[in-house]
Amino acid sequence: MTLPAPGSALARIAALGLELPEAPAPLAAYVPFTVIPVAPGRALVFVSGQVALRDGAPVARGAVPVDVSLEAARENARLCGLNLLAQLHRAVGLDNVVQVLQVTGYVRSSDDFEQQPQVVNAASELLTEVLGEAGRHSRAAVGVNALPLGVPVEVSAVALASVPAPG
Amino acid sequence: MTLPAPGSALARIAALGLELPEAPAPLAAYVPFTVIPVAPGRALVFVSGQVALRDGAPVARGAVPVDVSLEAARENARLCGLNLLAQLHRAVGLDNVVQVLQVTGYVRSSDDFEQQPQVVNAASELLTEVLGEAGRHSRAAVGVNALPLGVPVEVSAVALASVPAPG
Amino acid sequence: MTLPAPGSALARIAALGLELPEAPAPLAAYVPFTVIPVAPGRALVFVSGQVALRDGAPVARGAVPVDVSLEAARENARLCGLNLLAQLHRAVGLDNVVQVLQVTGYVRSSDDFEQQPQVVNAASELLTEVLGEAGRHSRAAVGVNALPLGVPVEVSAVALASVPAPG
Repeated sequence: MTLPAPGSALARIAALGLELPEAPAPLAAYVPFTVIPVAPGRALVFVSGQVALRDGAPVARGAVPVDVSLEAARENARLCGLNLLAQLHRAVGLDNVVQVLQVTGYVRSSDDFEQQPQVVNAASELLTEVLGEAGRHSRAAVGVNALPLGVPVEVSAVALASVPAPG
Repeated sequence: MTLPAPGSALARIAALGLELPEAPAPLAAYVPFTVIPVAPGRALVFVSGQVALRDGAPVARGAVPVDVSLEAARENARLCGLNLLAQLHRAVGLDNVVQVLQVTGYVRSSDDFEQQPQVVNAASELLTEVLGEAGRHSRAAVGVNALPLGVPVEVSAVALASVPAPG
Repeated sequence: MTLPAPGSALARIAALGLELPEAPAPLAAYVPFTVIPVAPGRALVFVSGQVALRDGAPVARGAVPVDVSLEAARENARLCGLNLLAQLHRAVGLDNVVQVLQVTGYVRSSDDFEQQPQVVNAASELLTEVLGEAGRHSRAAVGVNALPLGVPVEVSAVALASVPAPG
C-alpha cells in the first residue's frame, strides 16, 4: 500500500500525477450524492455508482477479461475511484472526509472470471493513496453480466464526513 | 421531471392515478424494513429489495430486453418504486421521509443490455413525483443475470426519516 | 424460525454446534469492517462481503444449481453468515449488536435460477438464531454470474451496535 504523500488530499492527487475531474453528472433521474447529518458535526455521504466516461462516452466497454483485460479493467476502476473522490470533494470537500465506510464494486465479468477483487482494488488503493487512513473502507466486489453504457466497472460508496455543526 | 402535486405524499400518489399497495411481505427469513434512530428526531430506514408481484406472482418474468421489453421493464421498476413507498409508509409514514438517501436497482439483463439507468429511472422518477425534493436520491443501477422468482427488476433503498424524539 | 437459546450470542453459537471462526482477512486492499459513532453510545458497523473459505480456498465453486446444488449453496450461505458474525464479534462484540440493519446477498446463479432468497435465507436464519430479534434485518438477494474466487455466495451487512459513549 503506497503511503499517502503529506499535505492535503488534493496535493496527494497532484503528487500521483492525477487531476480531480469535474464531478460527473448522473446518467439519469437521480443525484450524484446525498448528505445527511447523523451526529453533531458529522454527516453520512452516499455517492452514486460511478463509471469511467470521457467526454460522455465510456473509456472501455465489455466484459472482463474477454473484452477488457484485467489491467485495462484496473485502470477503469481507478478512474471510477477518481470520480468517487470528485463527488466526495464536491459534496463535502475531500479534507473533510472522516472515513470511507463502504465501497461496492461491480465488475462486468465473463461467467468464469474470478478476480473481481483485483479489479476493484485499483479503486480501493486510490482512495487510500489520496485519503490515507480515512480512505480505508469495508467492501463488496461482485461480478455482473451487464452494466450501464457497457462499462466494465461501476463503484459506489458511503462515507462519513465532518461538517459544520448547526449554529 | 414532473413536479409533485401539492399536498401530502398520499395525495400525490392519488393524483398520479396510483394506489399505495399493501406493503408486500418479505419472500423469506428477513423483515421488510429496519428503522434505527441516528440523531434526535431522526432515523435511518433500510428497505428490503422490492419486486413487482401481483397476488404473489411476478408481474413479469425474464431478462431485459429479450424476454421483457424496455417499456415493460420500466413499468415493472415503477411498481418496485411503489412498493418501496408502501414500505416507507408502513415504516415511518410517507410524510415523515426527510430524504431518500440511496437506491440500488438490479435489472435482469441480457449480456449486451446497457440501459439499466433508463429502467431504474421509472422507480426514481416515481419517488420524486411522490416525495418531491425528499425523493431525490443517490443511486447505483446494475445488470444481473438472475433475480428472485424470475422478476426483471429489484430495487432497495435507504432513507432518513423524521421520528418522534424520545421523551 | 428457531428460537434462540438463552444466554449470550456465543453460547447460542455453541448450542447450534457451531464455532465462531477467526474473522477472515479481506481478499484485497480494504478492511473487514468499519465502525463509526452515529449517536451517543451507538455506532454503525459496515461489514465487507463475506465468502466461505477453508484454509484460504473456496469451500465450493460455481453457479447454483448447475455446479453447486441448492442445499450446498445454503450451507455455503450459512458459512458466510458465520463469517459475518465473526466480523461483528471482532468489530464490536456480538452481544453489543443492537440490530442488523441490512444484508445484501449475492448468489452466483445459472441464468434461469430463481431461488436466491432460499439460498440467502440460510445466512439470514443463522443471524436470527444467534442474535435473536437483534438479528432481524432488511435484505436484498440477487443473482450474479460471477463472484470472487469462484464462490457461489457472498454476503455483506450493515449493523447498529452499542458502544461505550465517549467520556
